[in-house]
Amino acid sequence: MNFSSKILEEAVNALSSLPGIGKKSALRLALHLVQDKTHKSERIAAALLKLDNEIKKCRFCHNISDDEVCEICKSPARSNNILCVVESARDVMAIEETGQIKGRYHVLGGVISPLEGIGPHDINIDSLIRRVQNEAIEELIMAISPTIEGETTIYYISKLLKEYNVRFTIIARGVSFGGELEYADELTLGRSIASRVPYHVHT
Amino acid sequence: MNFSSKILEEAVNALSSLPGIGKKSALRLALHLVQDKTHKSERIAAALLKLDNEIKKCRFCHNISDDEVCEICKSPARSNNILCVVESARDVMAIEETGQIKGRYHVLGGVISPLEGIGPHDINIDSLIRRVQNEAIEELIMAISPTIEGETTIYYISKLLKEYNVRFTIIARGVSFGGELEYADELTLGRSIASRVPYHVHT
Repeated sequence: MNFSSKILEEAVNALSSLPGIGKKSALRLALHLVQDKTHKSERIAAALLKLDNEIKKCRFCHNISDDEVCEICKSPARSNNILCVVESARDVMAIEETGQIKGRYHVLGGVISPLEGIGPHDINIDSLIRRVQNEAIEELIMAISPTIEGETTIYYISKLLKEYNVRFTIIARGVSFGGELEYADELTLGRSIASRVPYHVHT
Repeated sequence: MNFSSKILEEAVNALSSLPGIGKKSALRLALHLVQDKTHKSERIAAALLKLDNEIKKCRFCHNISDDEVCEICKSPARSNNILCVVESARDVMAIEETGQIKGRYHVLGGVISPLEGIGPHDINIDSLIRRVQNEAIEELIMAISPTIEGETTIYYISKLLKEYNVRFTIIARGVSFGGELEYADELTLGRSIASRVPYHVHT
């Protein structure tokens, strides 16, 4: 690409370093910002600088947070007895949308993946064990993606926690709402039959 | 969306103000930046601030430029006699890729569009007329999109320039390379037949 401006070229290179944004999209965004008369790029820059300088990880659950301790861990309305273990901050948001977790979270920050060189000590498992030892946790809900890496991580953690008196559960795997049975993979379909539950008529 | 962090929420709002980036993509980008350990968001912020503060429009052709006068207008290798009139800086880049323009450019910064409230004085037509009056321009090549608005703009400029002794040309409209005839719209196909050119065997 023949840029008429070094500054424009730098902006395009910076924007195209984001995942899913190629050179052409980056150029479109940069030209949009050049044309914009409301100082939009200044506002975006300010927000990104804050992201770099001010955002923290909660010292208890490792969720992203504006303070040392996140809103969920701070909340007195949350149960101390239930801990939902997730892979990422994105998963906390998705689960919070459901309103099904009355307890707190623990963000692993990844799953064990030998192929990518991620071992048990590269994710927040040690701090999870310490929480189980020191907090009044009764149930650990593993809300981890049912991938090979996810299953490995669940298995690994379950082994470490065998000696502790804590209920260890995983979220149900089964057919999705709105999904058609014939398109479900056989592993999921098989599991959904094995894990069948009594039917309750909602009145 | 239930954000656990105000800073994250602000970044998502800022990023989703960009065209083609929705809340979900913005969240994905923001979380990517939070995880990134190389200060990528700082680098992007710096590039965007430069874009806001330092980029200029060339005082001759209105193309985006790092200086008062753009590289193309500065270049002594460019012909003074040919002026290619385009809608946007993006079009200058696209045409420069072809290497077909040996002259200079004039960026209108839009086309006349009564529906969007863009009149002749909202785009750089006045300065174009002044250039025709004061520079040694022999040919004006209109490289404007063949839309209703583009055609209106070409017609309007052609009327203003009737009294000047300057060749007024438009880029050829016809079937695209690699396109199939049966899929070309009838206006384009009709025009391509009316504007047919002698066939030269390349040796």
